[in-house]
Amino acid sequence: MDGFRERDVTQLSATAAVAQIAEGRLTSRALVDALLARISLRDPDVRAWLALSETARELAEECDAVPAARRGRLHGLPIGVKDVFDTFDLPTTHNSPLYEGFRPAADAAVVDLLRSEGAIILGKTDTTEFAAAGRNAATANPHDLSRTPGGSSAGSAAAVADFHVPLALATQTGGSTIRPASFCGVVGFKPSFGRVSREGVRIYAQSFDTVGWYGRSVDDVALLASVLGLDEEFPAAGFSRNPRIALTLGPYKDRLSPESLMALTVARERLEGAGHRVQVLDLPPEFEPLDRHHRVILHREGQASFRNLARRHSSSLHDDFHHRVENRDGSSLADLARAYDAMGSARIAFDAFMGDFDILIAPSAPGFAPIGRGPGDPVFNASWTLLGVPCLNIPIPLGSSALPIGVTLTARRFADKHLLDVARHLEPVLNPT
Amino acid sequence: MDGFRERDVTQLSATAAVAQIAEGRLTSRALVDALLARISLRDPDVRAWLALSETARELAEECDAVPAARRGRLHGLPIGVKDVFDTFDLPTTHNSPLYEGFRPAADAAVVDLLRSEGAIILGKTDTTEFAAAGRNAATANPHDLSRTPGGSSAGSAAAVADFHVPLALATQTGGSTIRPASFCGVVGFKPSFGRVSREGVRIYAQSFDTVGWYGRSVDDVALLASVLGLDEEFPAAGFSRNPRIALTLGPYKDRLSPESLMALTVARERLEGAGHRVQVLDLPPEFEPLDRHHRVILHREGQASFRNLARRHSSSLHDDFHHRVENRDGSSLADLARAYDAMGSARIAFDAFMGDFDILIAPSAPGFAPIGRGPGDPVFNASWTLLGVPCLNIPIPLGSSALPIGVTLTARRFADKHLLDVARHLEPVLNPT
Repeated sequence: MDGFRERDVTQLSATAAVAQIAEGRLTSRALVDALLARISLRDPDVRAWLALSETARELAEECDAVPAARRGRLHGLPIGVKDVFDTFDLPTTHNSPLYEGFRPAADAAVVDLLRSEGAIILGKTDTTEFAAAGRNAATANPHDLSRTPGGSSAGSAAAVADFHVPLALATQTGGSTIRPASFCGVVGFKPSFGRVSREGVRIYAQSFDTVGWYGRSVDDVALLASVLGLDEEFPAAGFSRNPRIALTLGPYKDRLSPESLMALTVARERLEGAGHRVQVLDLPPEFEPLDRHHRVILHREGQASFRNLARRHSSSLHDDFHHRVENRDGSSLADLARAYDAMGSARIAFDAFMGDFDILIAPSAPGFAPIGRGPGDPVFNASWTLLGVPCLNIPIPLGSSALPIGVTLTARRFADKHLLDVARHLEPVLNPT
Repeated sequence: MDGFRERDVTQLSATAAVAQIAEGRLTSRALVDALLARISLRDPDVRAWLALSETARELAEECDAVPAARRGRLHGLPIGVKDVFDTFDLPTTHNSPLYEGFRPAADAAVVDLLRSEGAIILGKTDTTEFAAAGRNAATANPHDLSRTPGGSSAGSAAAVADFHVPLALATQTGGSTIRPASFCGVVGFKPSFGRVSREGVRIYAQSFDTVGWYGRSVDDVALLASVLGLDEEFPAAGFSRNPRIALTLGPYKDRLSPESLMALTVARERLEGAGHRVQVLDLPPEFEPLDRHHRVILHREGQASFRNLARRHSSSLHDDFHHRVENRDGSSLADLARAYDAMGSARIAFDAFMGDFDILIAPSAPGFAPIGRGPGDPVFNASWTLLGVPCLNIPIPLGSSALPIGVTLTARRFADKHLLDVARHLEPVLNPT
């Protein structure tokens, strides 16, 4: 986290950068230059990027020449894209040897939408293979290069954390957006299931896979949420200045390390110190088996997703994917039906549970980023993904020398804007940096 | 339906063609030649195809040269593909002017799997725009060119019905596989939700879209089901020679025309005439609102699916898609949550309901294929799609001069093989041709 000049534009938030470009105080070209210089300095160590755009400077200059009236909401803003999103002008490899150098003919729908709003795709970030299993990303945690940034969205989380780019696209199937956000100390957002197109995004589990993204503030992730259509009010009424806050350790609390417990305690103390009431509670027991059901659906839907690769590339496909295709877990179709049914019932139950609260605070990860390059344990994320609820990781600084750690803020399904509004309101309290 | 020579190989079922090729009694090249000749004769009227493979004859010759030991389960078999599946060697247009001449860089996962089993992709078939709304397919019903083959899988259904190809891929979001099967007099199969990869298939509604297919017999659709991994037994026990059969007119019976009522009556009489017991019953009242919930989810998920096209191609995108993106139905996010919850609850309820039955027989369409080129009314299909259950249309011939009509056989979720086994057993009774 070194190498800054004072007022380096790489430190700008996305919202600040967009505003400065709109006001003529910053050019997109200057921002791209600064970010590429930062990447050039840092990426030999961090290894966040699998490919960088060769036309980013040119695209930035084109942006700078566009009159104000024809500018989109992300005009001139560089964005990183996890390498499971199709891009027409950059290779899309899914970090799989089977897709080395693969060039899709078109952008994923989300990438296309970002470009149509003026964004510049700066490059493709490293990922756990197919955002699923197999090969780890080579990316290091910028806070400690011996540690993982978490996966699967390793490169996107590290790139935002290390000031290579202000915003980056991720995906989440278990905890692939939220957990790396906790490990890297950035804001991560996974919207409600089904509200953002996955067209052109590699699919692992069709009931779970959700496009997410990283920024360095709630405002930044909310900017992208708005562009992607998540700015519809629900519940219809806004929240009061005193949101109703619940906090839970969740049903897997015995797997929490001291630092994760501390992050939750500190979050609570900071909120209470600011005059908020925080109700600490257990989730109903029916939520306990959700992680197990998640795994059944995950592997069974993965069975369908990797069947053709297993058939065609038998020996060169990582064994993890053969594991899915051959159903080595041995789950039955009755198990699968039970898992889907539990998912349906739990979604209803969680919405009812959240009738009394604006947000629920929960762990983002078992603890600090582990040593190595593994993706990390999704146990504290998978149930929220299965529930289809919006999740936001907010960093909870424990002290200047500590590694990053965060907590998850969730809300009821489709209350994406509500969650972002409450998170923006609480951010100065929870993350007072 | 004219133009046959005696023992024309275009009339062969897929299973018969595969067997004859395997036994050396038929070459893939001869079959491809015959089908292309048939298409050349008929397609100026039927208009099933948007593109035909220019390399099919060459690929067939390559197949014919492969030794028996290296042959897949579809070796040498020509298959038609709805033009919402990506194909690397043929344009993929989604019947949208925005995608004219578009060439994906890779095959959809299902197409790749079929090719890996030796299938030859004969061409791309016409479809309702994006398998959703907008522009109709130009395809005619081969039984009466003034009538529609149904949509959205118009070209695939007509191509199989008119002996252009023995098997063809379809998709279903509402009734896009089953209804055209009824209108065209072919066997149509939509598997349980989530069991077949949609990678590289255009997505309209991510909770519903399912890859389906057409053949001219239950054996033919079962062949493809097996290749796609749907040959896992569930329930574990096979069915007896006397499957437990229920029949319902469904909650929308006031929208059934006389011919659809007759198809259900004839199906019942034929079964009872063959010694089967058929229990006629109403569905529980909680199934009545499912069609309405389906529409809410459909349009809201479509809102996400078409957002980027609406942003980028404002005036050249069909108004139907702007309708989705702008949520002109005016559904709220609370309506959406209720619709998903009703879906979850109804899936559980339907499995319980089906605990007493092996299959349920229901209408496939309101009646005969209407005049024109419209896709038709999905009211008798959408609820099954929402329930995620496997559905099979089986033709119920009402007399040699009558237009085709069929009935839907459904079973509980994931009982795909069971449904196909029961349907195969009952096919000679229901469709005695």
